[in-house]
Amino acid sequence: MASSILSDCSSARLLPLRRAFLPPPAARFRHSLALVTPRRLFVAAPAPLPLRSRRMDSVPVTAASAADSATISTDATAKVIDGKMVAKQIREEIAVEITRMKDAIGIVPGLAVILVGSRKDSQTYVRNKKKACEAVGIKSYEVNLPEDSSEEEVIKHIASFNSDPSVHGILVQLPLPHHMNDENILNAVSIEKDVDGFHPLNIGRLAMQGRDPFFVPCTPKGCMELLHRYGVEIKGKRAVVIGRSNIVGMPAALLLQKANATVSIVHSQTKNPEEITRQADIVIAAVGVANLVRGNWIKPGAAIIDVGINPVEASLLLVSLASGSLQHVLFFKCLWDLLALDSDLKMLQDPESPRGYRLVGDVCYEEASKVAGAITPVPGGVGPMTIAMLLSNTVESAKRIHKFK
Amino acid sequence: MASSILSDCSSARLLPLRRAFLPPPAARFRHSLALVTPRRLFVAAPAPLPLRSRRMDSVPVTAASAADSATISTDATAKVIDGKMVAKQIREEIAVEITRMKDAIGIVPGLAVILVGSRKDSQTYVRNKKKACEAVGIKSYEVNLPEDSSEEEVIKHIASFNSDPSVHGILVQLPLPHHMNDENILNAVSIEKDVDGFHPLNIGRLAMQGRDPFFVPCTPKGCMELLHRYGVEIKGKRAVVIGRSNIVGMPAALLLQKANATVSIVHSQTKNPEEITRQADIVIAAVGVANLVRGNWIKPGAAIIDVGINPVEASLLLVSLASGSLQHVLFFKCLWDLLALDSDLKMLQDPESPRGYRLVGDVCYEEASKVAGAITPVPGGVGPMTIAMLLSNTVESAKRIHKFK
Repeated sequence: MASSILSDCSSARLLPLRRAFLPPPAARFRHSLALVTPRRLFVAAPAPLPLRSRRMDSVPVTAASAADSATISTDATAKVIDGKMVAKQIREEIAVEITRMKDAIGIVPGLAVILVGSRKDSQTYVRNKKKACEAVGIKSYEVNLPEDSSEEEVIKHIASFNSDPSVHGILVQLPLPHHMNDENILNAVSIEKDVDGFHPLNIGRLAMQGRDPFFVPCTPKGCMELLHRYGVEIKGKRAVVIGRSNIVGMPAALLLQKANATVSIVHSQTKNPEEITRQADIVIAAVGVANLVRGNWIKPGAAIIDVGINPVEASLLLVSLASGSLQHVLFFKCLWDLLALDSDLKMLQDPESPRGYRLVGDVCYEEASKVAGAITPVPGGVGPMTIAMLLSNTVESAKRIHKFK
Repeated sequence: MASSILSDCSSARLLPLRRAFLPPPAARFRHSLALVTPRRLFVAAPAPLPLRSRRMDSVPVTAASAADSATISTDATAKVIDGKMVAKQIREEIAVEITRMKDAIGIVPGLAVILVGSRKDSQTYVRNKKKACEAVGIKSYEVNLPEDSSEEEVIKHIASFNSDPSVHGILVQLPLPHHMNDENILNAVSIEKDVDGFHPLNIGRLAMQGRDPFFVPCTPKGCMELLHRYGVEIKGKRAVVIGRSNIVGMPAALLLQKANATVSIVHSQTKNPEEITRQADIVIAAVGVANLVRGNWIKPGAAIIDVGINPVEASLLLVSLASGSLQHVLFFKCLWDLLALDSDLKMLQDPESPRGYRLVGDVCYEEASKVAGAITPVPGGVGPMTIAMLLSNTVESAKRIHKFK
């Protein structure tokens, strides 16, 4: 029952709950079972869910949303932007390129990953990256340091990789333990090997006209690659980026701007996110709030890139915020984050999922796919692209360092 | 006659000219006498013109603009944001701060300016900066190099200032001669003395959440200072920046975003700039097209910061582009730039101005001041703030280097 409510992004069935827990309608709240554990945002999706089997059962709460629902009550028309397929294709292209480089100059690209602590999720991501490297022919190097390592120890390892000619990319797995200063550590990575593209010098060059970054951050680069490969025109189009994080939203906005879109950035302080989003020909949603973007936020025919990968479940969630003010949604998300700060996915239980949880995007796929012209699913959309772009950045780096074209 | 047409931003009187020189109305052109020589953009205004004496005489060209004109036909209501007055106040505050520092630790801030070549406009700006420094108690250092200097020579001087402890800010006067690479030279300035704030590392830190730049570029910093000092609320407001240059538009957008506005950036590829601008509570116009932003682009009550300082005159200009597509306006601006590439202001003659030219902003002040809630005049708005912010950055730098609070 709970998961069926979850799967259709709607809220009306929970009206008694809203009456019990939420402010009156004047405060612009509605219900949803969709919330996130923030640390899980932007992770690679473990396994695809049967997306199209979810049931569309939207029940409008207000007259306005009823009208909106009417426009989206037809069958899905959006083209599915298949990130899994594109990522596979890119990995194949990379493998060919690596073979060509090895044959021509005897160089094999190398990626070093530094993991501090023993977070299981971080270990999984590092393992996935290692596997992906091996599959395309990139040599991977790994350093595992204990949780109580000092900043100096981490920086010492970074320095060692900076000067190692067989390493062309260095990646420090985030999050770092609380006693460490991310900035100090990330700034220690040589700008020429910063395949994550998180260095402020890279970001500055991304922002500036007439300059190019050494590396474009992987997830936003993946978003742009999907738009390009699906022939979505960007120049002169209105684009809205929802979210302004340093690793996705902000660089995605800069990339769209560089590609000559007219860009607006929607964030937690934006008062009318749905109205602004509705003007966009291209939407990149990267805010980490499950099912935030409803069908009535979307301009018919728009291209939707959904970066959020939010594990959700029903039994722990009392509050539902399917739409309404982004500020209110984020306030409740924040509350949730505080409560769930040290929780793990194992705590999240969904009786209908073998994993105990489900992954959903920031966009309500069922509704959006009936309005949009093209849309990425979650999982299987942006998720697989992130690692593909990391491999791509590593190969680019090796080619640049060894002046191989 | 010509200048009276110019002063009211309108175009209808030139209808025969349009018929002779321009595409049909379907191409969305209208007339104006307003064009710019690009090199003069963002310069300090030499002397204020009697802004309020200009006559409002807008003649609507289309039904839509007639309706818009009706809404702006009342008397001006906008508060004038007096940049000249604010800049004076800031310079006084800086002078007090410098005296305090000198008395406490015996340090006098120092600003070094490097001028390559003998462009008269550059010489004037450098002279103005020197005077402004002296007036507040900053010691100024100047190096004048011949036009045919090599990049290495310029970089040698920069390196010398980088290591000189009496210099806290270094400024390379732009434009540099054509044979030099701006990027190589600007990157040679120590990030800790880059008072212009143009280094990509500074821009990156400006773009990122949780990071702060060493210096905020002077003109955008001046825009924000005006908004703050006039009590314009930014958080949660819609802001539109027109123009995306590295020195004004782009950093202004990043600053507004950092202050929690919802920012959209309008540029030469934007298809409906007037529609987007009309949604904004705050507009920063920095595109370098005189009188581009008409009254009907503006949301009633909005705060308008006009960065453009465009010298215009009547007798040389045949083409008038008071509104319509920004793309088309910029196309003609580009044509104009090519024609006027080596011209000097002396070539521009306006019989009614003692200088032979007039300075106007990117915003049609006469129309905008009847719709906006607050507006900067040109000159006397943002212009005087740029040098004030340069002085402010130099003092900040000296305080940071000497750990003085």
